[in-house]
Amino acid sequence: MTEDWSSTSANHAPRALDLHLDVGALGPGRRQAGLEHALRTAVREGRLGPGSALPSTRALARELGLARGTVTAAYDQLVAEGLLLTRPGAATTVAELPPTVSAFAAAARPAPPVLHDLGPGTPDGSAFPTRAWLTATRRVLARARPADFGPGDPQGRPELRAALAAQLGRTRGVLTTPDQVVITSGFYQSIGLLAEVLRASGVTELAAEDPGHRTYREVVARAGLRVLPVPVDGDGARVETLTASAVLLTPSHQYPTGVPLHPDRRRALASWARRTDGLVIEDDYDGEFRHDRRPVGAFQALAPDRTAYCGSASKTLGPALRLGWLALPPHLVRPVVEAKERADLYTETLGQLVLAELIDTHAYDRHVRAARLRYRRRRLLLHRLLDRHPDFTPHGVPAGLHTLATTDREEAALLARCAELGIALSGLTELHHDPAAAPGRPGGLLIGFAATSDHGFERALHALDEALAS
Amino acid sequence: MTEDWSSTSANHAPRALDLHLDVGALGPGRRQAGLEHALRTAVREGRLGPGSALPSTRALARELGLARGTVTAAYDQLVAEGLLLTRPGAATTVAELPPTVSAFAAAARPAPPVLHDLGPGTPDGSAFPTRAWLTATRRVLARARPADFGPGDPQGRPELRAALAAQLGRTRGVLTTPDQVVITSGFYQSIGLLAEVLRASGVTELAAEDPGHRTYREVVARAGLRVLPVPVDGDGARVETLTASAVLLTPSHQYPTGVPLHPDRRRALASWARRTDGLVIEDDYDGEFRHDRRPVGAFQALAPDRTAYCGSASKTLGPALRLGWLALPPHLVRPVVEAKERADLYTETLGQLVLAELIDTHAYDRHVRAARLRYRRRRLLLHRLLDRHPDFTPHGVPAGLHTLATTDREEAALLARCAELGIALSGLTELHHDPAAAPGRPGGLLIGFAATSDHGFERALHALDEALAS
Repeated sequence: MTEDWSSTSANHAPRALDLHLDVGALGPGRRQAGLEHALRTAVREGRLGPGSALPSTRALARELGLARGTVTAAYDQLVAEGLLLTRPGAATTVAELPPTVSAFAAAARPAPPVLHDLGPGTPDGSAFPTRAWLTATRRVLARARPADFGPGDPQGRPELRAALAAQLGRTRGVLTTPDQVVITSGFYQSIGLLAEVLRASGVTELAAEDPGHRTYREVVARAGLRVLPVPVDGDGARVETLTASAVLLTPSHQYPTGVPLHPDRRRALASWARRTDGLVIEDDYDGEFRHDRRPVGAFQALAPDRTAYCGSASKTLGPALRLGWLALPPHLVRPVVEAKERADLYTETLGQLVLAELIDTHAYDRHVRAARLRYRRRRLLLHRLLDRHPDFTPHGVPAGLHTLATTDREEAALLARCAELGIALSGLTELHHDPAAAPGRPGGLLIGFAATSDHGFERALHALDEALAS
Repeated sequence: MTEDWSSTSANHAPRALDLHLDVGALGPGRRQAGLEHALRTAVREGRLGPGSALPSTRALARELGLARGTVTAAYDQLVAEGLLLTRPGAATTVAELPPTVSAFAAAARPAPPVLHDLGPGTPDGSAFPTRAWLTATRRVLARARPADFGPGDPQGRPELRAALAAQLGRTRGVLTTPDQVVITSGFYQSIGLLAEVLRASGVTELAAEDPGHRTYREVVARAGLRVLPVPVDGDGARVETLTASAVLLTPSHQYPTGVPLHPDRRRALASWARRTDGLVIEDDYDGEFRHDRRPVGAFQALAPDRTAYCGSASKTLGPALRLGWLALPPHLVRPVVEAKERADLYTETLGQLVLAELIDTHAYDRHVRAARLRYRRRRLLLHRLLDRHPDFTPHGVPAGLHTLATTDREEAALLARCAELGIALSGLTELHHDPAAAPGRPGGLLIGFAATSDHGFERALHALDEALAS
């Protein structure tokens, strides 16, 4: 479709039609922009093909009822953009252009429809503290200085680091200072930065719980570290088997089994770290949520110089915020901050300031307490249901946002049945380092009780009841 | 200081003092927590040394006026945390613990005090549209669904991608669709992701303007690409010299010289990309800010299938937001989204939704227009000042947030003088690929006119006047 404008020069109407330009509809100040837009569109859609000569500015101005200066300015603009060509003494022509972009259809990600979200790691978004967040945002913006909208601190906002150092000391027993806290864009980034720093310091292997979180093992492996399995039993990770010089652990509530690391093992781990100059990466992913009593304090307090403590707002407020933190041994602060700066300069500022405000005003604590009560009740409902299905054995202490239930029944068939009923949850097998190994190992389901609203959770339990019964 | 508790067992008063515990001040529900806190602190501060035997629960309960069960529960908690040891038939003792953390003094970053910010890249934070941001936040939160606080889309929120596709088409002539837009945490991350994807596809070299942005060359080099210089003259980058298969350019307003890429070179660049299957990375870092007339459209429209268009909110709203975007050729969407997901899963959601709301309600356009007028006036003031210093030659078209002024005077001495007077600005030399090369090359100052408030800018100009005169 290379219709040549010049070939229809005797006929004025088609030109105006070609331009789809209704000058009457445009205010005086927008006529040049309107003409440019019409010319650009005609060129891109092929109505004005490459090499086509455009009418003179005088002719087009007369035809469209525009001032000649307007048309000249529009032509100049498009020449500057490279869409039109002008040569002394010759007509303005359309430049040679690439073919227009074919519409890009994003490949659909195949996913079954989820009616009941029993995923293990996401909190109840319907309980997001909208009002508190908005109030804190208003306060933060009201007192913001101009520099707060400028470049940020790669280590994180001092306000948030101070709030977290106090909060983590108070609620998790973490021994740290604002200078040792680093803000990241979530635990996923935290573990990536730590793995990069370890690799750069000559570490080649990192031990991680088996079973444990698959995604984080992948992050570590991409950083060039070999991941060694640490077996898990009813007392948590068997840390007496450690051979690597760094280990990623969930001591307060092992993921996914839900058991806390036994006190003897906590001490053994601290000795190991001191003896071997090893590093413990403590993933305190749901330490805020012990339902029966005050949580076991973070392991970090036993070996603060050998532990990188990791937390985030993902389980308390939501992963959408992308706010995570590290409490680091002094010698790791600088390398991790440098890695953070290399990765993405710094984490966005407003969210950090709002979270600091929520912590300082105790709105964060109130929110966590309310969530804990809600999840505690839901966990009881879930365990009551599991009691009715004796072929499932729940594990772990009353804590967190999920329960692991192991079974001798075939895990794949159970997961398929859940998917059929629109239930989203996870299987245990895929969390093992080698999912294909140990065929006699029991399968299991990770059943989250936080991701839905209260109402949705009850409906989800009904569906789960049906899935487990069949 | 290893005072042994058991050695003072005959004396009750010191125990209570050691614990710093005023039970009377604690409500009934907080007594266990208070005791735990006091014990924990005493252990950490060395007042209770390793191996010290604790009094029996009965004795301590009596001494402190607490129920025995409260003391037992507190001991149990600290045993679970590994701070205390208990053995059948023996007294509870303090566990062996590592030395307490030495306070970490963050090494001070040496930086002269900045009185006048004439840095080239930051917008006026005092003009941040606080009210509009807050209104948009309220609306976004009011209509948020629970899932909005859950895991995000690695490609970016559909609302923001749709808003940007329309906005970029309207204001920058970018030819794209929401499916081709990817949201990142700023241009710094955008260029890192692109470099990673290029390297993974076998590309080994990337050309970049000389002079040009040093930081971004470093990002590209870290991804494993060799960076080749593209010389810049008064018509922009000399793209006819390209030998690499990818090039990073600032076609609308070359950084730092401020000249737009000549129309002939735009066309030559598009032909090169088509002919060689090359990729143009268009850094449209300040395309919103053409002060004299409507901006030259983005180069991307000339070669949409061969251009990765990059923009961000850093120059319009502020870098603190960490919001950037890419409009990509269809074949690059999937690899870049996968790289983004590997890097940090996805960009935080609330900021994306708020920006989409600002764009959709035209508050963003209004803000940019107001900023443009402000910067235009400031640029005129700066150029009037430069007119009084004939040994400085300003370059570039009326656009952007900075002006480059070259000079035959010694750049290092000028920068030192500016620093003395508390003026923050940048030199030209460090933006060259090889700052040591070409000793005859003129030096220059990059003078930003956006980073301060209006009032601060006038004072900064006075200081600059003094620096250039001396």
